[in-house]
Amino acid sequence: MDEAARSFRTRLERAWERSGGFLCVGLDPDLPKVRACVPDSDRPILEFCRSVVDATADLVCAFKPQIAHFAAARAETDLEALIAYIHDAHPGIPVILDAKRGDIGASAEQYAREAFERYGADALTVNPYLGWESIEPYRREAGRGVVLLCRTSNPGSDWLQEHPAGDPLYLRIAREARERDAGDLMLVAGATWPRELAAVRREAGDLPLLVPGVGAQGGDPAAVLEHGADSRGRSLVVNASRSVIFASVGPDFREAARASAQALHGLLRLPG
Amino acid sequence: MDEAARSFRTRLERAWERSGGFLCVGLDPDLPKVRACVPDSDRPILEFCRSVVDATADLVCAFKPQIAHFAAARAETDLEALIAYIHDAHPGIPVILDAKRGDIGASAEQYAREAFERYGADALTVNPYLGWESIEPYRREAGRGVVLLCRTSNPGSDWLQEHPAGDPLYLRIAREARERDAGDLMLVAGATWPRELAAVRREAGDLPLLVPGVGAQGGDPAAVLEHGADSRGRSLVVNASRSVIFASVGPDFREAARASAQALHGLLRLPG
Repeated sequence: MDEAARSFRTRLERAWERSGGFLCVGLDPDLPKVRACVPDSDRPILEFCRSVVDATADLVCAFKPQIAHFAAARAETDLEALIAYIHDAHPGIPVILDAKRGDIGASAEQYAREAFERYGADALTVNPYLGWESIEPYRREAGRGVVLLCRTSNPGSDWLQEHPAGDPLYLRIAREARERDAGDLMLVAGATWPRELAAVRREAGDLPLLVPGVGAQGGDPAAVLEHGADSRGRSLVVNASRSVIFASVGPDFREAARASAQALHGLLRLPG
Repeated sequence: MDEAARSFRTRLERAWERSGGFLCVGLDPDLPKVRACVPDSDRPILEFCRSVVDATADLVCAFKPQIAHFAAARAETDLEALIAYIHDAHPGIPVILDAKRGDIGASAEQYAREAFERYGADALTVNPYLGWESIEPYRREAGRGVVLLCRTSNPGSDWLQEHPAGDPLYLRIAREARERDAGDLMLVAGATWPRELAAVRREAGDLPLLVPGVGAQGGDPAAVLEHGADSRGRSLVVNASRSVIFASVGPDFREAARASAQALHGLLRLPG
């Protein structure tokens, strides 16, 4: 059985073991900063991201490239090359493509092709606003993961996601995901909302959670472990983007990124 | 005052007057079908879409390219060229880029750059699940429109959007959009749900609605006019994609697309 044919969950579990922790590094290559880091490169986004990947690969259970930063810079071919590079140079580390797609029917099928065939991502973030039928097209390719937005990390996420008070939307999504899981689903639940993170965990059983918001957004890693871990103290993928990749905006960005990732890795270890 | 500096609303109103109706043609270039239509082209997606645009431009108030079909085919440069072509060959017809983006902070800013700077779209569809703060980054470029998903056309849209029974999510979005509008907001409300379309119209005042679901999805144009029009009998952009662009899948696709668009145009005329 080759690696891609295993379920996404199995690959994630191996990645937790291998890295010894829950850290995920988000690759959001903001172009002006990237240019300051690799001033002489003719493919700065690709070179910058590859360098960060190499500097942090032994510390992470996943990488999460954010597609808007590539698309705004007309750098789709850099994203293709980056994901191929991660699979090639660091096999076994899942790549979660953060694109927050969401559409119906034929359009959803095309987004699935974009993420899984074109880019070769292991998992894709998906926005559930159009309902469960809009999520199914992403689940047809064996071995890929679908990461549903549930309770996002931003300050204004409560406006829709907490509505209504008794049975808020985000818990509805968490419950349904637990019921429908086939080893391929995850939920986004922000580190900035520890109480809501605990509520998601209660509804989601042992489903893995992608937790943004530590690092630049100020979420507390210890609170994430306390409120977000599953019954075995696991099932977390805790993302930090800017606080790692732009720990220094200059030629020493590699060393600074590694130091920042090491510090977070130390706070986000597997139990035992 | 040049065209781009006017508010999106003003440009849409002119486009209604010029075309005499509410028809929008959706450009979803499914590659196998496109190849059957233009078998000898070396840029089939671009040639196909340009031909449909030329065959229907006098009948439409907007064009709506759906980005997943371009992205899955690695055809971003075709999408750039197509939108530039529409602005050049058919000035004054707004282009609504259907990408259903939705993210926070820096990522939302990058999506706005992708849609408005890179592609030159007049408006972008945006998913509101992350809350109002996630919508604001798209509103900073003067003269552009933001089209919020409200009550989508698919059968399973009720699962989240109708929750809870008393004050469903989609009406919450409609109310807030009306309050916050500055001539740049629109709402998606599907033709397949006439009662819900009427409810959106009640909450949204005279905000323009983008109405998918006539054509292949079976929504009734007369019901859209009855339940969706504003107090002046206007403010509708009624989209048909496949039923127009693939009315024939073969070398006569231009004539067939025009005939299909003409029939729909006749059912979606401005009053008076």
